[in-house]
Amino acid sequence: MNQIIETLLAHRSIRRLQDKPLTKEQIELIVASAQAASTSSYIQAYSIIGITDPDKKRRLAELAGNQSYVEKNGHFFVFCGDLHRLEIAGSMENKEVMDSLESTEKFMVMLIDTALAAQNAAIAAESLGLGICYIGGVRNHLDEVCELLNTPKRVIPLFGMAVGYPEQLTDKKPRLPLAHIYHENEYEQDEEVYKQQLGEYNKEISRYYNERTKGKRDDTWTGQMIGMLSGKSRMYMHEFIKKHGLNLK
Amino acid sequence: MNQIIETLLAHRSIRRLQDKPLTKEQIELIVASAQAASTSSYIQAYSIIGITDPDKKRRLAELAGNQSYVEKNGHFFVFCGDLHRLEIAGSMENKEVMDSLESTEKFMVMLIDTALAAQNAAIAAESLGLGICYIGGVRNHLDEVCELLNTPKRVIPLFGMAVGYPEQLTDKKPRLPLAHIYHENEYEQDEEVYKQQLGEYNKEISRYYNERTKGKRDDTWTGQMIGMLSGKSRMYMHEFIKKHGLNLK
Repeated sequence: MNQIIETLLAHRSIRRLQDKPLTKEQIELIVASAQAASTSSYIQAYSIIGITDPDKKRRLAELAGNQSYVEKNGHFFVFCGDLHRLEIAGSMENKEVMDSLESTEKFMVMLIDTALAAQNAAIAAESLGLGICYIGGVRNHLDEVCELLNTPKRVIPLFGMAVGYPEQLTDKKPRLPLAHIYHENEYEQDEEVYKQQLGEYNKEISRYYNERTKGKRDDTWTGQMIGMLSGKSRMYMHEFIKKHGLNLK
Repeated sequence: MNQIIETLLAHRSIRRLQDKPLTKEQIELIVASAQAASTSSYIQAYSIIGITDPDKKRRLAELAGNQSYVEKNGHFFVFCGDLHRLEIAGSMENKEVMDSLESTEKFMVMLIDTALAAQNAAIAAESLGLGICYIGGVRNHLDEVCELLNTPKRVIPLFGMAVGYPEQLTDKKPRLPLAHIYHENEYEQDEEVYKQQLGEYNKEISRYYNERTKGKRDDTWTGQMIGMLSGKSRMYMHEFIKKHGLNLK
C-alpha cells in the first residue's frame, strides 16, 4: 500500500461540488496527466473540451438530464473520441485511410484511448484534493451536444467529467467480489458458482443501502442492473455512430 | 504538482521486464485498484484474467504477435469487456435484457468501463515501482484467444497488460501539443491552424527519433499514423463482435 494506491482506493463520485473555478495551472496539470496515459500505436484518439461559458454549461446540463453538478462545479470537461485528426493526417500525407477509420477496430481503439486518458485526468484531479464525477448523460442527445460543441465528423463526445472542490463527501459503493472479477488462467464458467457469487454480492449491496437509508431502500445489484437494462437507454447510438462514419465495417 | 501527478507524467511503456513473479498481495492491490475506478451506472462491465500458466503465456505471446514481453514479465493480465455477467443477472431476475445488451451504447459502456479499470491498474502497478505495457496484440486473433482463456459469449479480451520489474527504462514519447488536444467551449475547426499544429508536432517527433537513433530514423507522427492505418489491421473485428451478440443495434 502507498499514497497513490490509497488515493485510487478512496475514489468515490462526488456529485456536490463548489462552483469555485479551477486555476489554469490545475486544468493544465489535469490535461497533461490525461495525455501521459498509454495510447494505442501512439494514436492519441481523443480531444478534451473544457466548458467555461455559463450558457453552454446550462444547456449541456439540460441535455445531460438536468444533473445539477454538470452546471455547478469548478470545471467541466467533455472527453471526445477523435478520429477526425487522423482524417486530417491522411489528407496531409495524401493517403486514403477511410477503410481503417471506418472499422470497428479503430472505433474500439478510440473508445479505449479516450477512457485511459480520462482516468488519468480523474486521478490527477483527485490528487489535487478535488472531487470528480463522470457524466455519461452527455450521450443522451449527441446530435445536440455535437452542435453545441461544434465538433466535426468522427469526433464523438463520450462522457463529461465534473471536477471541483467537494461540497459533500459520499460513501464508497462496494464493488463486485475480487474473486468474481479476477480469474486465473481461464474464465470461471460454472454458472452455479457465478450465481452464488452474485447472490452474495446482492446481499452486501442490500445491506449497504439499508444502512445508508435506514431501511428505506433495499436494492440488489442484479435488480439495479435489470432496471437499468430494461430502460433500453440510448438505442439511437448505433445509427448515430454510423452517421459519423465510424464502426461501419 | 504532487507525487501522484509526477507518477502519471513519468509514465512510459516498459517492454523489457524481469520475470520475477509479482506477489499475491501486489496482484490483489492492482486488481482492487482497478475495481475502484468509476463505472457507468455501477455496471462493472469487465473481468480480468491473470495468466500464470507458462504454456498459456507462450501461446498468448504467439497470438499477440510474438512480443517477448507477453511471455517474460512479472504478471500478465488480460482485460476483458464483460456483458456476460449482465446476461446472468437477467436470468437471475427472470427478465429479458437482450435488446440492451446487444446495443452499440452498451458495447461502448463496456469498452469505457474496462479501460477506466485498466488505467487504475496501470497506475497502481507503477506506484509499486513496476513497469507496464498495454498489449493491443491480444486482439490480433480473438477467436483463438477466447478459446485459450475459455471466455463465454459477450466476454471480449480487449487488451493485455504486461507488468513487472523494469529491466530497461525507455524514453517518454512526446504527446500532441496540449493546445491541440484541449479546446475551450468548442472544437477548434480551422483546418489551417489544425494542420500547422500537426506540422509542428511532426517536427518535434522527427527531432525525437533523430536524437534517439543518431539520425537513423526520421519519422513524423502523421507518417506513422498513415503507415499504421494503411495496414488495415484487425478488419475482422466488426463481424467478430457481432458474432458475440454485441454492437448489433
